[in-house]
Amino acid sequence: MSSKDCLVKCFMREMANYVLYASKIISDEEVEHAISMLIETNREGKKIMVVGAGRSGLAGRAFAMRLMHLGFNVYVFGETITPALGQGDLIISISGSGTTRLVVTSATAAKEMGARILAITSHRDSPLARLSDHMVIIPGRTKLAAEDDYVIRQILGAHEPLAPLGTLFEITLNIFLDSLVAELMQRLGETEKDLRKRHATIE
Amino acid sequence: MSSKDCLVKCFMREMANYVLYASKIISDEEVEHAISMLIETNREGKKIMVVGAGRSGLAGRAFAMRLMHLGFNVYVFGETITPALGQGDLIISISGSGTTRLVVTSATAAKEMGARILAITSHRDSPLARLSDHMVIIPGRTKLAAEDDYVIRQILGAHEPLAPLGTLFEITLNIFLDSLVAELMQRLGETEKDLRKRHATIE
Amino acid sequence: MSSKDCLVKCFMREMANYVLYASKIISDEEVEHAISMLIETNREGKKIMVVGAGRSGLAGRAFAMRLMHLGFNVYVFGETITPALGQGDLIISISGSGTTRLVVTSATAAKEMGARILAITSHRDSPLARLSDHMVIIPGRTKLAAEDDYVIRQILGAHEPLAPLGTLFEITLNIFLDSLVAELMQRLGETEKDLRKRHATIE
Amino acid sequence: MSSKDCLVKCFMREMANYVLYASKIISDEEVEHAISMLIETNREGKKIMVVGAGRSGLAGRAFAMRLMHLGFNVYVFGETITPALGQGDLIISISGSGTTRLVVTSATAAKEMGARILAITSHRDSPLARLSDHMVIIPGRTKLAAEDDYVIRQILGAHEPLAPLGTLFEITLNIFLDSLVAELMQRLGETEKDLRKRHATIE
Repeated sequence: MSSKDCLVKCFMREMANYVLYASKIISDEEVEHAISMLIETNREGKKIMVVGAGRSGLAGRAFAMRLMHLGFNVYVFGETITPALGQGDLIISISGSGTTRLVVTSATAAKEMGARILAITSHRDSPLARLSDHMVIIPGRTKLAAEDDYVIRQILGAHEPLAPLGTLFEITLNIFLDSLVAELMQRLGETEKDLRKRHATIE
Repeated sequence: MSSKDCLVKCFMREMANYVLYASKIISDEEVEHAISMLIETNREGKKIMVVGAGRSGLAGRAFAMRLMHLGFNVYVFGETITPALGQGDLIISISGSGTTRLVVTSATAAKEMGARILAITSHRDSPLARLSDHMVIIPGRTKLAAEDDYVIRQILGAHEPLAPLGTLFEITLNIFLDSLVAELMQRLGETEKDLRKRHATIE
Repeated sequence: MSSKDCLVKCFMREMANYVLYASKIISDEEVEHAISMLIETNREGKKIMVVGAGRSGLAGRAFAMRLMHLGFNVYVFGETITPALGQGDLIISISGSGTTRLVVTSATAAKEMGARILAITSHRDSPLARLSDHMVIIPGRTKLAAEDDYVIRQILGAHEPLAPLGTLFEITLNIFLDSLVAELMQRLGETEKDLRKRHATIE
Repeated sequence: MSSKDCLVKCFMREMANYVLYASKIISDEEVEHAISMLIETNREGKKIMVVGAGRSGLAGRAFAMRLMHLGFNVYVFGETITPALGQGDLIISISGSGTTRLVVTSATAAKEMGARILAITSHRDSPLARLSDHMVIIPGRTKLAAEDDYVIRQILGAHEPLAPLGTLFEITLNIFLDSLVAELMQRLGETEKDLRKRHATIE
């Protein structure tokens, strides 16, 4: 298949197929425990802080926006309104490689203050993973990793380098986080109407 | 299928399936013309500005980041470093509903200054679409639209309200924009190594 | 006095002198009423949203940060976590010229939703001023205004064009807002120690 | 003097007086060398990156905006469009205490890549200062420092705690950076009209 015959839309299909593949790799137990941490933090009125650099940070912000729509007490690292963290608070630290300086540094600081760390990463042995109280492994060919390249080449064929840098991690991450939102809506009995009420109205 | 049996991962599959559906709906001609606008703007050394509100804005930023990695002269509306636009510059205006105030207002201003407008929206008859020089229609159940709900219910089943507000537009948008990047890499002969060289190195 | 003999530090003195002049121009009644609005909004547990474009927006964010340190329920327009506004909420709209599109548009939207508008501007007859429930006039040679130039030339001498665009408004604004914080600390009985406890701890 | 008689406007005067005091403390030689670094980096077409956390970061952004208006090739750490740094580039690292994690970490990374570091801090012996190629000392009672408190109490009287946390550093920083802009305009022969042409036009 040449991209000339297919254009942008073929890449869309290949990326969607990668997400279908990734959905089989992700651990139910890891996800279930992450959901418990989120719901419990919310129930106890504690704060959640989302941290990520670059495009992972943007995915994190999109997730934080929905957590706010769900009524969570949530903040984004690096924005103006970011309160002190403490005992019982939760930091969601996102880094495909698990080595991003900003993410590891902030997780270290959060831990010192008594917050728990939920890591979302591709690398079980990374510095971020080692710091975390719990992690969810999301596959993706991250900046560091080459080990997943074989699988990716199977799925994406010759086009592998065209999902450059952390693209596959970020795409999977985006859809994973939106699926978490869907699950949280169901567990918390929140409807779209409830979310809409908390949606910014003056943009 | 109940979400109890399936958890988050089922939602991931449903969302990936929606992207597969969307990839068939998107017009090759619209995409091809958008690519020409991007490449031409770059070749002439003109500026590109990406504008979007909320989660669409985050997808726009992720795209802008990759355009920068590809060597484009690109900016994000609302950030610190955003130059004046003029003749020959291009504004990429993203709004599912095509009515988002921030996006319509900035497109109006950009047009007055001689910039061209590339709209990415679900609504061919929206205020944004009418302002645009060219548009790419991305399906998605946007804040406004209910017309697509029938199709969505076919694909997502009972879970439709669990992709709340603009979620489906945003997911499709993210993957569409990453596919544009893949296509641009191929057309411009850029490799992952080229992109890595322009990637922020101190985060 | 030539800048060759004096360098940067002369400009600092001239700018500080402009603030001393501005402090005499600002109306006690306008300030007092603004403080009442802030304290009342806080007492009733209502939300405050700060809006400004460009450098005025940055001054607004610095103010929002301190309001958070003071325990206010405060948000910044354009950031990830920005909730819906409604009855009883307060929007602080900052624009020297009183015409900045983003600020006027968001104030219009906020008003429709029942929020009150506190305008901070140099122009009593501007679109923003007309929308507002209350305004505080801060002097400054804004993008629009030339009328203040005579006074400014008296104070800044030949150097007037070296405080380009909205610089004098922005400098005065920054110090005015920090002075509001000092006043609010006193009225609310908040100490530095109280503020420090709410200060972000992981940056 | 009680704040009851004076309100917000007295605080404005005290803060302006602090800037007048600070303008005498700042070293002409340090400033002159900083200006040379800025002008040289610009002349050679190299990049400038501004980094700061919290309110110092906001002051840094306001400065970056003006550098852009002056035609510099400037970026802000943490925003979407932030390129790789390398040999000959300049990072302006702002931290009153000289210990802010984000600032020290990014300066370390920038140094590894061959960029030079211009530190703006209150503390000559801080980790940031030790990393820097050149520093400008700006007085201010920073989060760490208590040593300046005697001087501050002389100037601000009983009101000292009402300029909480880094407020005095930030106020001085803002006016110092705007004065640098004035100086750069003069040295580069840039007029307000030149700046206006590069000012964002669609906000």
